[in-house]
Amino acid sequence: MEESTEGYRGSALHVLRKYGVKAGQMVEVVTTDELETRGLIVPRYEYADDAHIVLKLKSGYNIGLQVNSVKSMRPIQDSKQEEKIDSTTARGHSEDSSLRKKNLLLVSTGGTIASRVDYRTGAVYPALSASDLYLTVPELDHLAVIHPEVVFSIYSENMTPSDWSVLSSRIIELARSKNSDGVVVMMGTDTLAYTSAALSFSLMGFEIPVVVVGAQRSSDRPSSDAALNLRSAALFALESKRPGVYVAMHLIENDQSIAIHAGTRVRKNHTSRRDAFQSIDAPLVATVENASEIKWNENYELPKEDNHRSDRFRLRTKFDKNVALVKFHPGFDPSVLSHLVENGIRGIIIEGTGLGHVSDLTVGVIADLVKSGIFVGMTSQCIWGHVDLNVYDTGRDLIQAGAVPLENMFAETAFAKLSWVLGNFEETSELMLTNFLGEFSLRIPLSTR
Amino acid sequence: MEESTEGYRGSALHVLRKYGVKAGQMVEVVTTDELETRGLIVPRYEYADDAHIVLKLKSGYNIGLQVNSVKSMRPIQDSKQEEKIDSTTARGHSEDSSLRKKNLLLVSTGGTIASRVDYRTGAVYPALSASDLYLTVPELDHLAVIHPEVVFSIYSENMTPSDWSVLSSRIIELARSKNSDGVVVMMGTDTLAYTSAALSFSLMGFEIPVVVVGAQRSSDRPSSDAALNLRSAALFALESKRPGVYVAMHLIENDQSIAIHAGTRVRKNHTSRRDAFQSIDAPLVATVENASEIKWNENYELPKEDNHRSDRFRLRTKFDKNVALVKFHPGFDPSVLSHLVENGIRGIIIEGTGLGHVSDLTVGVIADLVKSGIFVGMTSQCIWGHVDLNVYDTGRDLIQAGAVPLENMFAETAFAKLSWVLGNFEETSELMLTNFLGEFSLRIPLSTR
Repeated sequence: MEESTEGYRGSALHVLRKYGVKAGQMVEVVTTDELETRGLIVPRYEYADDAHIVLKLKSGYNIGLQVNSVKSMRPIQDSKQEEKIDSTTARGHSEDSSLRKKNLLLVSTGGTIASRVDYRTGAVYPALSASDLYLTVPELDHLAVIHPEVVFSIYSENMTPSDWSVLSSRIIELARSKNSDGVVVMMGTDTLAYTSAALSFSLMGFEIPVVVVGAQRSSDRPSSDAALNLRSAALFALESKRPGVYVAMHLIENDQSIAIHAGTRVRKNHTSRRDAFQSIDAPLVATVENASEIKWNENYELPKEDNHRSDRFRLRTKFDKNVALVKFHPGFDPSVLSHLVENGIRGIIIEGTGLGHVSDLTVGVIADLVKSGIFVGMTSQCIWGHVDLNVYDTGRDLIQAGAVPLENMFAETAFAKLSWVLGNFEETSELMLTNFLGEFSLRIPLSTR
Repeated sequence: MEESTEGYRGSALHVLRKYGVKAGQMVEVVTTDELETRGLIVPRYEYADDAHIVLKLKSGYNIGLQVNSVKSMRPIQDSKQEEKIDSTTARGHSEDSSLRKKNLLLVSTGGTIASRVDYRTGAVYPALSASDLYLTVPELDHLAVIHPEVVFSIYSENMTPSDWSVLSSRIIELARSKNSDGVVVMMGTDTLAYTSAALSFSLMGFEIPVVVVGAQRSSDRPSSDAALNLRSAALFALESKRPGVYVAMHLIENDQSIAIHAGTRVRKNHTSRRDAFQSIDAPLVATVENASEIKWNENYELPKEDNHRSDRFRLRTKFDKNVALVKFHPGFDPSVLSHLVENGIRGIIIEGTGLGHVSDLTVGVIADLVKSGIFVGMTSQCIWGHVDLNVYDTGRDLIQAGAVPLENMFAETAFAKLSWVLGNFEETSELMLTNFLGEFSLRIPLSTR
C-alpha cells in the first residue's frame, strides 16, 4: 500500500500527517461537532477538494469530515484489516489455513458503486485502480480473499457491445488465473441490465456464478445501497454453487432483502429508487437476506442445460457492434431504419406498440431491409407480455415482411442477444428463437385467456 | 337503418331472410347444439364468410352462430332497442321528456373496441360507419342518447400527430353541434396513451369530459373487456362533471373495477392483459365500479386551473409532425439524430438511461443540434422516476449541451406534448417545463432520499 495519502492534499493531507495516519487505515476520530466515530480512511480522487477527509464507517456508509472540525484522530488496530491487506499481496496466506478461504474475483467497470464522492460538489468519481477499489470494499473482508480488478472505469452509458466482448474475455481469464470461486462485476446501473443479458450469453457454460451489481445511491448518502448490494452479490457468487449470470440489487426499499435476478430477465424500471430493478415476466431466482442467507425462490425454474452444455455455444465472447434498437412511435419515420443499414447495421430490434406493431409505412421498409439480408426482430414497448403477430393485419403483414416476433424477450435483452448471435453465428433467426437461458418464456395463446 | 342485412350474404343472408330478421334486430335463437339464447344481430364486415351470424348477448359478449346449426330464430320485441333507434334519427325525442336524456358523443377511430370479428379466421376488422358502430354498442342504451361518429377507421399504430389535429378539431366541432354532455373516444390500444396525452393538451379548456377507451380483447372472446370499458367510459364522461381527458380501462383482471387515468400519466405496460394500462408516478383519478358508480380517489389532486383558463392555451389543436422519439442504447449511433434533423425534424425526445443519460459521443451531437435550433428533451427509459441531470458528469454535460431534462414526464407523454408545443407556440423549452395538467410531478431531490 504505497499510496498512503492517496488523493489527499493541502489541508486534508496536513491533518492526516499531523495525526500520523494514512488512507487505508482504521482511525478513531473526535470532531468539534462532538462526533466520535471509527472508520476507514478512504482514498480520494485526484481532483477532490482538500477540505474533507472521507471515512467509511462499519455500516459501509461513507461520511465526509471537514478537516477543520477534526479535534483528534488516532490510528487503531484492526486485525481484519491487517489480514486483508496481507491476503492481497500474498494469496498463499489463506491456503495455509486448514479451511481454505474462498477466492472472489471483484471486477470493476466503473459506476456509482465503485466511486468516490466529491463532498464539495456532490459529484461522483470512479475508482481508478485495483487498490482504490480494494479500499472501498472493507465490508467483503470476512467473506473471502478478494482479488480486485479494474477492467474499465467508465459510466455505464458509455459501455458498448465491443466492451462486452472485452469484459467477457477478461472475466474468464482473470477468474481462471485467480482460481476464483465466484465473480462479482461492479458497474453503473444505467446499462447494467443490458450488460447482464450480454454476459448471460457470452459466459454460457462458465463454471462459476457471476453476479452483476450496482448502486443507485453512492456510499456517501445515508440511503446508500452500495454496501448491502455488494455484500449480498459476493455471498451469492461464493455460496450459491449455481453457475450463471445474475443481478443483485435491493428487492424493496428496506435494507434487508437483496433480489437475485436472472441476468436476461431484469430491467431498470426506476431512475432513482434502490429497488429500481425488476424481473420482467419471470420469477426471482432468490433473495439474499441480511447479506448472510440465500433464500431460493421455489417458483424459479432452472434453465434447461442442453444448450449450455453444447460446446458450440460455450464461452463465445464476441459481440457484433452493428446492431441497433429502435423504438416505434406515432408518425415514426422509417427512413431511420434505412439510415442505420447504410451505416453498417446488420440487425435491428424494434420496440413496436402493443403486440409488436408498427405503421404500414414502416412495414414496407422492413420488408425491403429483410430482403437485403438484415435481421429485424419485433419486441414491444409495453415491456411486459408476449408479442403476437397473428392477431391483427399489421402483425401478419410484419410476418410476411420477414420480421421475427421475439416472444416476451424485452427490447434490451433482445438487443444484447442479437449482438451476441450476430457476433458468433450464422443462423440469426433460428438462434434468436432458441431459448438458451429462459430469456423468454412459453407463450399462453391469447385465445385461451 | 336501411342496411338491414348489412354485411350478410350467401347462406347467412339466406337464414336471416328465412326467419324474416335483419341486422340490428333482437332475436331469440335455438340451435342444434341445444343452445337457446337472445341477442342482437350484429352487422358483419364486407368480406366476412357467409357461414356465421354474429349475435351480441346482453352481457356485451358476441358469439358467432354457425348458420347450419340454427334450428329457429324469431324476432322479439325490445322496447329499449326501438327507443334507441328512434333517438338517433330524431334527437328531439329525448328532449320531449321532462327529464332530459343526456347526449353522448361516441367517436370511433378504429381498433379492437370498434371492431367485428371474422369467425372463420379469428381476424378483427374495424367498424366502418356510424350505423355499424351504433349497432355494436347496445349496452349504452340506458345511459344517454348516443351520437355515433366514425372519424377514422384505422389501427392506432397508423395514427400520426397530424391525425391528432384532425381528431381534436372534430371532437370540438361534433360535441358542440350535438350539444354533448360528454365524449367517448374509441381507439386501438397500441397508441392509446400517446393519443390521450395529445388530446389532454389540445382539448385543454374544453367544457366537457373526454374519455378515451379501448379493448385488449375483441368482443367475440369470453374475456372481452370491450363492453365494460365502454360502459364505464360513457358513465364517467356523462356523470363525472369533470372536464379533462381521461383513459378508462380495466383496473385489474376482474370485471368490476374500471380505472380512470389522467390522460397524460397513463401507459400501456402489457401487450395483452386487460389491465395493461397503468398510471405512472401518479394516482388514479377514480374508478368506475360495475359500470354504475364513480369512486373518486382521494389521493388524486386536480391540476391547477390557471393554465387551463388562459385563452392562449385553450383548444389549440395543431400538432407538429416534425417530432421524433429516440431510445438510446449501448453503442447507439448518434448520426440517427442528425439524419432526423436532415429530414425536417424540429424536436426530439430522447429516452436516455437511468437519470437521463446518453454516451459522450451522443452528447456531442446533441450540442450541435441544439446550437442549430433543435429542441432536445431528456426522458428516461426506466419509465418510472424523475430524470436528474445534476448528479453525474454525463448529466451536467447534457445540460451544458442544451438538452432539457423533462422531470418525470415519460417519453410518450413528452413526445405528444412536444408535438403540441411546436405546433402552436414559440417558447418550446419554457412550455415543455410548464406543468399544464399534472403531466409531471414535483421532484423530491435525490439527496433527501
